[in-house]
Amino acid sequence: MYLSKKAILSGVSLEGDITILGPTFIGRGSTLGIYSIVGYPSFSKINDIEEKNYQAYDEISEGSRIGEKAFIRSHSVIYERVRIGNRVQTGHAVLIREDTEIGDNTVVGTHSIVDGHVKIGENTSIQSGSYIPPESVIGNRVFLAPFVVITNDKYPASKRLLGVIIGDNAVIGANSVLISGVKIGENTVIASGAVVTKDIPPGKVVLGVPAHVVMDRDEYEEKKRIYESGA
Amino acid sequence: MYLSKKAILSGVSLEGDITILGPTFIGRGSTLGIYSIVGYPSFSKINDIEEKNYQAYDEISEGSRIGEKAFIRSHSVIYERVRIGNRVQTGHAVLIREDTEIGDNTVVGTHSIVDGHVKIGENTSIQSGSYIPPESVIGNRVFLAPFVVITNDKYPASKRLLGVIIGDNAVIGANSVLISGVKIGENTVIASGAVVTKDIPPGKVVLGVPAHVVMDRDEYEEKKRIYESGA
Amino acid sequence: MYLSKKAILSGVSLEGDITILGPTFIGRGSTLGIYSIVGYPSFSKINDIEEKNYQAYDEISEGSRIGEKAFIRSHSVIYERVRIGNRVQTGHAVLIREDTEIGDNTVVGTHSIVDGHVKIGENTSIQSGSYIPPESVIGNRVFLAPFVVITNDKYPASKRLLGVIIGDNAVIGANSVLISGVKIGENTVIASGAVVTKDIPPGKVVLGVPAHVVMDRDEYEEKKRIYESGA
Repeated sequence: MYLSKKAILSGVSLEGDITILGPTFIGRGSTLGIYSIVGYPSFSKINDIEEKNYQAYDEISEGSRIGEKAFIRSHSVIYERVRIGNRVQTGHAVLIREDTEIGDNTVVGTHSIVDGHVKIGENTSIQSGSYIPPESVIGNRVFLAPFVVITNDKYPASKRLLGVIIGDNAVIGANSVLISGVKIGENTVIASGAVVTKDIPPGKVVLGVPAHVVMDRDEYEEKKRIYESGA
Repeated sequence: MYLSKKAILSGVSLEGDITILGPTFIGRGSTLGIYSIVGYPSFSKINDIEEKNYQAYDEISEGSRIGEKAFIRSHSVIYERVRIGNRVQTGHAVLIREDTEIGDNTVVGTHSIVDGHVKIGENTSIQSGSYIPPESVIGNRVFLAPFVVITNDKYPASKRLLGVIIGDNAVIGANSVLISGVKIGENTVIASGAVVTKDIPPGKVVLGVPAHVVMDRDEYEEKKRIYESGA
Repeated sequence: MYLSKKAILSGVSLEGDITILGPTFIGRGSTLGIYSIVGYPSFSKINDIEEKNYQAYDEISEGSRIGEKAFIRSHSVIYERVRIGNRVQTGHAVLIREDTEIGDNTVVGTHSIVDGHVKIGENTSIQSGSYIPPESVIGNRVFLAPFVVITNDKYPASKRLLGVIIGDNAVIGANSVLISGVKIGENTVIASGAVVTKDIPPGKVVLGVPAHVVMDRDEYEEKKRIYESGA
């Protein structure tokens, strides 16, 4: 257990052995799961220090900010300079690297990796096992099904990172891949297992490898209504 | 280290720092890996308590039941109301959520997620990194290769969950996706990377996106015999 | 915290609670992340001992060897008989099983699984969430994008393991699958989401399910230069 003297943790529940580094602020009513770490310094800074231990990390960490009534589950690691909104929940063993912003009420599922320099909106649901690399921008009320893989380099390993942008209300199917630089329009639906290589206009439903348009979101919603009715 | 006074742990090996909550029963000859948690309460119950710590969790946890000679590896989390058979093994950092049943001799590989309300039979092998959502039913002697993703909602994010059912002796290839509601027949083989969108009859071998039948299981077994002979 | 008396750890930084078993050697300037385990015995040996605890494991562990200035991040597990070069870095929650060799300057990303009996060269980058099974051989300066899945059994679950061989300078795209036994030539590029079912000659670029050749590496490098210039 290492709790930085610079951290503000009033009204926060700690499940057990936890590490909090730097001037981290966590809002009232939030919970941190056992074996979690918050405020871990970015590698470039750790690399510069001789003796790598939590006292030294604590001195260089800029801390992170987590809102009220958030729930960070066990075995998770949150780096420094992360801003997480109110009522955000993570699953177990989530990694959220530096310079990431996550809006209110968003969920980041078990084993998901948010690899730093990412912006995620409000009321968005990122299911288990997804990978979100630097430069990704994800809107509000987006649903990422399990094991979505987003990339940020069209010609790896190049010197240029080019993020994916996902519009509000988009649905990204399980185990689909979004190629570096694509723009997923608002209200778009990507089917499970699709590989998205081009921009998708708003309100379209796409599937396949490579992904192609098969219907409009309205038609999808109609099918969804029938499905929900149990037919 | 938190071991509930309500837990029954006679003849159980604990590797190190471990959390056991509620009236959990673990059979003789079983081993729990370090940094693991067993009997973690479901979220709806945790959400209702004010001060979230292991004393409070212990009071509300209904515990779980693990059979004899089981091996739960390090960094794993098992929720309450899970029933795990004899000689079951998990890999490292496995998550098994509430109301899951796992039969004797079954293996759940490293980093796999069994996301609650799942039934898995006996002598089944779930390799590393697989995702098994609520309402999934997996038979006996099934083989899930690494990173299989199963879904449970045909039109996400809908209000209806519809599980996948996998028959006995089925083989599900690596990184394949099984779409919500499909029934995978007994003795069926799904090739690696397939996306299964429809029911597959028993004894068929399918591949592709979307998956289609390419041969019978008998032919697959014949090819397997030749392969095993080293040809 | 359990540090074997047989371990040699001069000039090594330990972040916090860590387990080191057997005659493990870790070079000067290396760092071990909190909640990590090094030198964990292979299962066949653990299975033979009655009382499974770290004192007993320490006696049977053959230890591992990690070079200088390496960085093993938190929640990682490294089994016995692993040889890791100088300046190797792992992400968080990485699993590296027994009898694995990893060359100097190689990176193994967060949540990746190197499942034992694997050889990985120097200056290779394995991004997050990849799965590398026994019998895999990966060359030097290879780039594995996130969530690459490699298999080692053409007809699972058979009695024969047949590893994938990846040549120097190859680039393997995100969420692609390499089927057991395929040889990926030097300088080959596999596109994201591809399923590779056959050997790929050196210097070719392939994509699709199943993967087929679409261009030469030279053309890819030309496109990469244009992309990097920001066009």
